[in-house]
Amino acid sequence: MSVGQSIPRVDAFEKVTGRAKYTDDLVERNALIGKVLHSTIANGLVTKMDTGDAEKIPGVVKIITCFDVPDICFPTAGHPWSTDPAHQDPMDRKLLNRRVRLYGDDIAAVIAEDEVAASRALRAIKVDYEEYPLLLSPEEAMKEGAPLLHEGSPRNILAHTTVEDGNYGEAIKEPGLIKIEGVFETPIVQHCHIEPAVSFAYMESGRIVVVSSTQIPHIVRRIVAQALGIPWGKVRIIKPYLGGGFGNKQDALYEPLNAFMTQALGGRVVKLELSREEVFYATRVRHGEKIFLCSYVRPNGRLVARKYTAYSNQGAYGSHGHGIAAKGTNVFRQLYQDEKARLVDIYTVYTNTAAAGAMRGYGTPQAVFAVESHAEDIARQLNLDPLEFRFMNVMPVGYQDPFSKNVNYFDSFRQCVEKGKTYIGWDEKRKRYQNQTGHLRRGVGMSLFWYNTAVWPISIEVSSCRMVLNQDGSVQVQLGETEIGQGADTVFTQMTSETLGIPWENVHVISTQDTDITPFGTGAYGSRQTYVGGMAIKKVALLLKEKILENAFTYTRIQPCDLDIVDGAIVLKSNPGQVLMSLGELATETLYSHAHAEHITAESTLQAKSNAYSFGCAFAEVEVDIPLGKVKLIDIVNCHDCGRLINPQMAEAQVHGGMSMSIGFGMYEQLLYDEKTGKLLNGNLLDYKLATIMDHPHLEVAFVENYEPTSAYGTKALGEPPTVPGATAIRNAVLHATGVGINRIPMTPHVLYPAFKAAGLL
Amino acid sequence: MSVGQSIPRVDAFEKVTGRAKYTDDLVERNALIGKVLHSTIANGLVTKMDTGDAEKIPGVVKIITCFDVPDICFPTAGHPWSTDPAHQDPMDRKLLNRRVRLYGDDIAAVIAEDEVAASRALRAIKVDYEEYPLLLSPEEAMKEGAPLLHEGSPRNILAHTTVEDGNYGEAIKEPGLIKIEGVFETPIVQHCHIEPAVSFAYMESGRIVVVSSTQIPHIVRRIVAQALGIPWGKVRIIKPYLGGGFGNKQDALYEPLNAFMTQALGGRVVKLELSREEVFYATRVRHGEKIFLCSYVRPNGRLVARKYTAYSNQGAYGSHGHGIAAKGTNVFRQLYQDEKARLVDIYTVYTNTAAAGAMRGYGTPQAVFAVESHAEDIARQLNLDPLEFRFMNVMPVGYQDPFSKNVNYFDSFRQCVEKGKTYIGWDEKRKRYQNQTGHLRRGVGMSLFWYNTAVWPISIEVSSCRMVLNQDGSVQVQLGETEIGQGADTVFTQMTSETLGIPWENVHVISTQDTDITPFGTGAYGSRQTYVGGMAIKKVALLLKEKILENAFTYTRIQPCDLDIVDGAIVLKSNPGQVLMSLGELATETLYSHAHAEHITAESTLQAKSNAYSFGCAFAEVEVDIPLGKVKLIDIVNCHDCGRLINPQMAEAQVHGGMSMSIGFGMYEQLLYDEKTGKLLNGNLLDYKLATIMDHPHLEVAFVENYEPTSAYGTKALGEPPTVPGATAIRNAVLHATGVGINRIPMTPHVLYPAFKAAGLL
Repeated sequence: MSVGQSIPRVDAFEKVTGRAKYTDDLVERNALIGKVLHSTIANGLVTKMDTGDAEKIPGVVKIITCFDVPDICFPTAGHPWSTDPAHQDPMDRKLLNRRVRLYGDDIAAVIAEDEVAASRALRAIKVDYEEYPLLLSPEEAMKEGAPLLHEGSPRNILAHTTVEDGNYGEAIKEPGLIKIEGVFETPIVQHCHIEPAVSFAYMESGRIVVVSSTQIPHIVRRIVAQALGIPWGKVRIIKPYLGGGFGNKQDALYEPLNAFMTQALGGRVVKLELSREEVFYATRVRHGEKIFLCSYVRPNGRLVARKYTAYSNQGAYGSHGHGIAAKGTNVFRQLYQDEKARLVDIYTVYTNTAAAGAMRGYGTPQAVFAVESHAEDIARQLNLDPLEFRFMNVMPVGYQDPFSKNVNYFDSFRQCVEKGKTYIGWDEKRKRYQNQTGHLRRGVGMSLFWYNTAVWPISIEVSSCRMVLNQDGSVQVQLGETEIGQGADTVFTQMTSETLGIPWENVHVISTQDTDITPFGTGAYGSRQTYVGGMAIKKVALLLKEKILENAFTYTRIQPCDLDIVDGAIVLKSNPGQVLMSLGELATETLYSHAHAEHITAESTLQAKSNAYSFGCAFAEVEVDIPLGKVKLIDIVNCHDCGRLINPQMAEAQVHGGMSMSIGFGMYEQLLYDEKTGKLLNGNLLDYKLATIMDHPHLEVAFVENYEPTSAYGTKALGEPPTVPGATAIRNAVLHATGVGINRIPMTPHVLYPAFKAAGLL
Repeated sequence: MSVGQSIPRVDAFEKVTGRAKYTDDLVERNALIGKVLHSTIANGLVTKMDTGDAEKIPGVVKIITCFDVPDICFPTAGHPWSTDPAHQDPMDRKLLNRRVRLYGDDIAAVIAEDEVAASRALRAIKVDYEEYPLLLSPEEAMKEGAPLLHEGSPRNILAHTTVEDGNYGEAIKEPGLIKIEGVFETPIVQHCHIEPAVSFAYMESGRIVVVSSTQIPHIVRRIVAQALGIPWGKVRIIKPYLGGGFGNKQDALYEPLNAFMTQALGGRVVKLELSREEVFYATRVRHGEKIFLCSYVRPNGRLVARKYTAYSNQGAYGSHGHGIAAKGTNVFRQLYQDEKARLVDIYTVYTNTAAAGAMRGYGTPQAVFAVESHAEDIARQLNLDPLEFRFMNVMPVGYQDPFSKNVNYFDSFRQCVEKGKTYIGWDEKRKRYQNQTGHLRRGVGMSLFWYNTAVWPISIEVSSCRMVLNQDGSVQVQLGETEIGQGADTVFTQMTSETLGIPWENVHVISTQDTDITPFGTGAYGSRQTYVGGMAIKKVALLLKEKILENAFTYTRIQPCDLDIVDGAIVLKSNPGQVLMSLGELATETLYSHAHAEHITAESTLQAKSNAYSFGCAFAEVEVDIPLGKVKLIDIVNCHDCGRLINPQMAEAQVHGGMSMSIGFGMYEQLLYDEKTGKLLNGNLLDYKLATIMDHPHLEVAFVENYEPTSAYGTKALGEPPTVPGATAIRNAVLHATGVGINRIPMTPHVLYPAFKAAGLL
């Protein structure tokens, strides 16, 4: 009925009028205020804590220190649980940590009657530390003799993986190969969702309820229970509207501590809201990575063998850990198909920076920066057309990945590149900008990207859904998949409308997840929801439709198999224009039937055992001011094959947001740590240079709609991919403009000026 | 696992600690305040309303008058809807009424920023009326020429029914029959639930949400939509904890108006809470009835034919209407089985008193007062032992009602009477108090009662349930049946525990109904919930168990049919002592299975096409002070066969509350109207004489547990029956003490003194 149409967001009115309820809007008047005391050293041990003065401050209700919490290490990553210990996330932190691993670690918590008392108490707590040497980078942390952040992680290596496709050692012996190397560095950046981490917790009938701004309510339920050491059914998580997450809220951040606070007070309501500064230094960040690439290529451009070595900065705690570096290697292993061999060697290493977790793109922006910068460099070095070089080596149509069984059904790369080229004026500008001189030079660059929808077979992919038919023929839809600002509820509405055959206005997606009653689904991550949630919706809508048509027999005397639902009416399949009865009449008659009364509902779990490639590219045009070391983005286009578009306007908006993130990633954003103390230097929205509308040119978006056959509605990942290629396209445009390849982002003047100088441009 | 045990109420801790959230606890800080303007005449027409001054009062947001509301007459009774117009409830009122039918009718509403502004505005509205003659009783209202309250109800008769079993005219011709007559009058009383009618309403995404203190959320949803003329799916009702209802909240009281208020303001939150005084005069009351009984009986006491004529005072609006008088006639028609014939002739008549609706007992307290007072009078007149007379005529074991198909399986009457007799010392006291003189005289009396669980086949009986299995083997239960203070959630917990084989502590009944997601059930009335809700729970628990055991095969390799769940563990039926795996392990493995992941839930609708007799009696001992016209209740016992007891302690508490109501009904309570203006004279808890602990002797409760075969857990009605027999037992004890039969309750000095005087005792 409505898939493919740009219907208005179902939550637009609520959000525009300010009526939509976010977590903080729901906090009770009499809630106590919880605040966290963060360490003022980055590596060491709390030896003593004196809370005497703090306890005397009027309004202080309770102080909990790292000496008071359960001796339970728990995982925080928002992955589906695995009953196989080998697939469980690192369990390496307690509710409060005596062993301090970053500047800003959680070492105590105050609960008070108001904000002022809580803040005063934080300042009044005296802490003695034993301090260890600071480790800000994987290089430092892996050195022999460096203090270990976590027992059981020698050389501070959380994980190390080696994968070899083919025989790399043999392959590189082929005579005549050209060896090309590159080292690429990406920054630690932060999600900068507008709504901070915020939750409130209370108890009811001996169970703990946490209302939280989370992408993953069902997963947070499990983690809270694990952290407190209580049965999982004793925890209930409620997720209201969300002011953004971008992966940061795909971790259990402070919900476990908030739950512990209310438990410690016998169930009183406690609110725990982080300041912007705390969000910066004490939640999650994108892994900074250093990636070494070494390619062996024939003079004609055919890749024969490559090696990918990466060091991923995990920061203080495991969180999503090695999964990020691992997903990055799939960019390397799959985007281009070497003729003979590939070798991967990746390390995820604990350091004293903020714990790195999930962030939109999940390791692929880093890997694409390395792989696609390197690809550009190879083409340049071999004097090949960069697009021709890419198409010579890119994953071919029909490719099937041996592990995930994913198939590349379409020529998406060429189709997307064609659109990008046309928009940016590629052929003409590549020539026009070839031999520039002077201070201001222009260039065009591009980058492909690889992305893989959802997480099967690494983790399970499961989505449950329930639909409830009302007497007027409208339907409620409940599912565990979450609206986090991306528009999920709207596309779920459209999908339900489509399969049931009712107007979208008659579909009410229940936006709030409540783990007590919401069918299990794992939530917003991995760009999975339209894909996996869509499958669940289709399955359950068909179940509901079947029940409806079975009941319709009673009133129409026509077999269910010969009936259909069109535009909210029961019709004959053979004559869909003639309405037999409205769905509302059917629902009402059935619910109140003396012969057979039934509340028609349907529920089921869908387990997805597939996923889908979601490819595309970006093209960018820049103007470089060489003496200023400044890049001005002139134009940029993202081209995506995300399958069929459910809601074109919202899809475009989704891409806009990702492009903005990618621009920031390439040009402005980075967390800077003090090299002596490990303190975050720019952890606020003034000093942290987020890309804003002021920094954007027009953001052009183009789509290629190849209907994805494994997908219920033909759609695949679009949530994360938009963040991936932009930074690299800009980097390659700067290379085109100046001849200088910048291998470290963000490309600030601090990076560009020395690079241009070294290249003799200044 | 726990049925039959007195487990603590599952909501005890929340309620005792004040944490349980009632409607008013949930209202948002910034809610607007709605108030209703009530008419100051009882019968007439609003000719003009001037809101000019009121609108100028600061803080007043909107004023709605009876000239502004939709021209829609809607029903208010909390019955399941019927698609057959002949079975629909009277639709005779609008949101606000220009045609005024009681002193206190709703004629306008004010919405303001605070209580003060709203109250000031109410006072500032000027109303002009055209006034008609006042009709306080059915007699007055039925007179020729009396003004009609509702078009289409000639002589103000809402309904008139005649039923004849056998041939009454022929039967009474039998020679030698003794004709005995009696006229009995019962008062208009009020429910006096502690929590007043209160709700708040707002809109989200174009739909209206009403959070309300109601017994019947799913029904209120329908009525709100009908009243506003919008699709039913556009309304969402949420029911939090409830501070009592007793049937008053089995009507849509002010939810429709509250919904209209928020709609009129584009969705702003508006709270509408009634004062105690408004609850008295503007909500619902128990029908006052005047019942004429005429019996033809053989000298040996065998009833040959009887006639029952009743006038039921409906008050201003239809509400539950004729259903109350009709249910009362079943007491007459079924409790005693005349040998030849019975004739029923009942009228439900509109008057200018408060609209009468459902109240605990639903017409049976009135009918039992008539029938059992009359029975006592017959026995006395024929000089028969009152118990022998009763057993000679009472419904025999094995009786099947031809309409409802109900079977009287047990000799409950004799078993209950035996317990009551023994407790009160019947045989000894009947003799001892026989020939008293003097001012203070004692007596013992008794009354049987008839009650019929649930409402089939008058209305549909439908209850839907959903269960959700958590990873730790605990379960959430959702059903439309409501906790209103009676302990429903606790017995639902016990039932679920019993059928699933898990500890009751692992069952979480979702107490809040939300019509968007709660499976359809009609709510708390007709003493139906343990009976019909119990069936739904058993059905769905067995469905869930089946799914669990099917999944258990994967891990145990034992066929589901050979498995069972005992104490939260999967066991072999043939060796239940040996645990194969815990239910928690099974749930976790299944939810996170790579092979087959499933969130195990179950849901279904149960339609009950049976109901069950729930019989018993009360015995009372009184001391009468003849000159003071005062009755002191010395002792009282209620004996119930309500089938198997789910929770004996809570069952006893339920009976205590009912007994208190019955004492008040017989001795103290009545709404008094000014005969000139129709204004309620005693509509507050000071002037209305509610029976309290000060007026009670020890309340003794006895049970006979005959397992009801049609019931899922062997239980049947206990919600309402406790209110039924007490008043009559007291009346018959007064008769025993004084020889004077008081045929009008409450037995206040105003009634007793003239009666004793007329009987020559003074």
